Amino acid sequence: MRVVAELRVRYGDTDAAGLVYYANYLRYFEAARVEYLRQLGQTYREIEAGGVVLAVTQAICRYHAPARFDDLLALSCRIADLRRASFAFEYEIHRLPDGALIASGRTEHACVDRETLRPVRMPEPLRALVAAFETGSSR
Amino acid sequence: MRVVAELRVRYGDTDAAGLVYYANYLRYFEAARVEYLRQLGQTYREIEAGGVVLAVTQAICRYHAPARFDDLLALSCRIADLRRASFAFEYEIHRLPDGALIASGRTEHACVDRETLRPVRMPEPLRALVAAFETGSSR
Amino acid sequence: MRVVAELRVRYGDTDAAGLVYYANYLRYFEAARVEYLRQLGQTYREIEAGGVVLAVTQAICRYHAPARFDDLLALSCRIADLRRASFAFEYEIHRLPDGALIASGRTEHACVDRETLRPVRMPEPLRALVAAFETGSSR
Amino acid sequence: MRVVAELRVRYGDTDAAGLVYYANYLRYFEAARVEYLRQLGQTYREIEAGGVVLAVTQAICRYHAPARFDDLLALSCRIADLRRASFAFEYEIHRLPDGALIASGRTEHACVDRETLRPVRMPEPLRALVAAFETGSSR
Repeated sequence: MRVVAELRVRYGDTDAAGLVYYANYLRYFEAARVEYLRQLGQTYREIEAGGVVLAVTQAICRYHAPARFDDLLALSCRIADLRRASFAFEYEIHRLPDGALIASGRTEHACVDRETLRPVRMPEPLRALVAAFETGSSR
Repeated sequence: MRVVAELRVRYGDTDAAGLVYYANYLRYFEAARVEYLRQLGQTYREIEAGGVVLAVTQAICRYHAPARFDDLLALSCRIADLRRASFAFEYEIHRLPDGALIASGRTEHACVDRETLRPVRMPEPLRALVAAFETGSSR
Repeated sequence: MRVVAELRVRYGDTDAAGLVYYANYLRYFEAARVEYLRQLGQTYREIEAGGVVLAVTQAICRYHAPARFDDLLALSCRIADLRRASFAFEYEIHRLPDGALIASGRTEHACVDRETLRPVRMPEPLRALVAAFETGSSR
Repeated sequence: MRVVAELRVRYGDTDAAGLVYYANYLRYFEAARVEYLRQLGQTYREIEAGGVVLAVTQAICRYHAPARFDDLLALSCRIADLRRASFAFEYEIHRLPDGALIASGRTEHACVDRETLRPVRMPEPLRALVAAFETGSSR
């Protein structure tokens, strides 16, 4: 996996237990995949402008250790299981500077037409960028 | 003002201070005005389908007493300062059953075209419904 | 499963795709389990006041069909896999009035001490209430 | 005012109008004041650990132009109206790189005891840091 962003836990991300509210890790995952795509060379905004939405079909999050207000987190992710019209992102979130694993997870995505929400093939330019980027990261 | 809805404070609405996070009252205000419009006789979804967005130009919230997880809140609102292309909602949020005032506020709205985001007159049917509804409530 | 609550999709729950943002289903799941516990006879606030937090260790959500602003949703849930110090909630979210399945999921919980965050046995009164409630619902 | 942070608009920050949801600007204001305090030399976490909460008593936000998904925003703020037990933060949010003013606002704060939520004087070390920091910025 690549570290794609750092993120500061905001007060509004926490809940009455004093910890990050469990749904907010899915927001952090979103930040991770958007930054991953930017580094790969195509922004999510450009992909959507091309008429394709990367719709989430399933999300899973495992909570390893709690994060607290003002913690600095490192977001890592990679693309896995690349198929014709679907793929997955896998994530890890570590606390800085000690590197403790806070959360890990996976989102599965279907490429769908922006208007009809029907499945479409992943655009070839995106597929090529992903293949090159993931090969590069595994070296 | 009319009581337009009751709402339960969710765990995800609180923050590490054990209280409702301050931005979430603006979410509660939104719930109030949507229910107000439903009771008046025209849903916000219908208004938007007609091509008009009630864009917020200013929001203010005063925090009188803290609300906590699982508190039951009563949302009240009314429309004020109805003009050609703008108006305001005013709100109060009270805790049940004791009636303590938790928050009050006001949002100012401009009627804008959904596509161009340019100001337009408030649609006449909506204006008529508001006038009838507010007259009714002041009796 | 039991239907434990109805919930209106708020504007703030949606995203730029015009659909409910994927993380917000975990907020809806939270609403479901809090109402489930209330109907069972013990509020989550009472459980926490007793010193035990039902910490989420894993969450999964499957997205079957999109929900939109102002949709009315029925939240269903049940407790599964009840063990000494852990259990799971399972959820379904259906749109009203047509009954379309919007999302389903599962959260796994560990009973932990509120101060130390260490695992503890599920409090006996809660275990008894769950057993009675789930038996009742399966008849 | 000082620019204290840059922030990327997340997909989860937007709503079905395709714009940043209006309540989320209060989240951005929170990010701004936390970073302001860090640059001033005392983190909000340290202030709270000292037993004092900077409770928000009023918030106001003016919406000048809409921000969209993936916009990069510059957060500016300053402290104003410093009194014995209260003060205000003022904010501006500009879009990068064109500098368009997106939102401006103000939050009023009371220093309160973390346990009792009663008003207390602003801690002297914090007051001294603010005075030095604001003097420095106005030169």
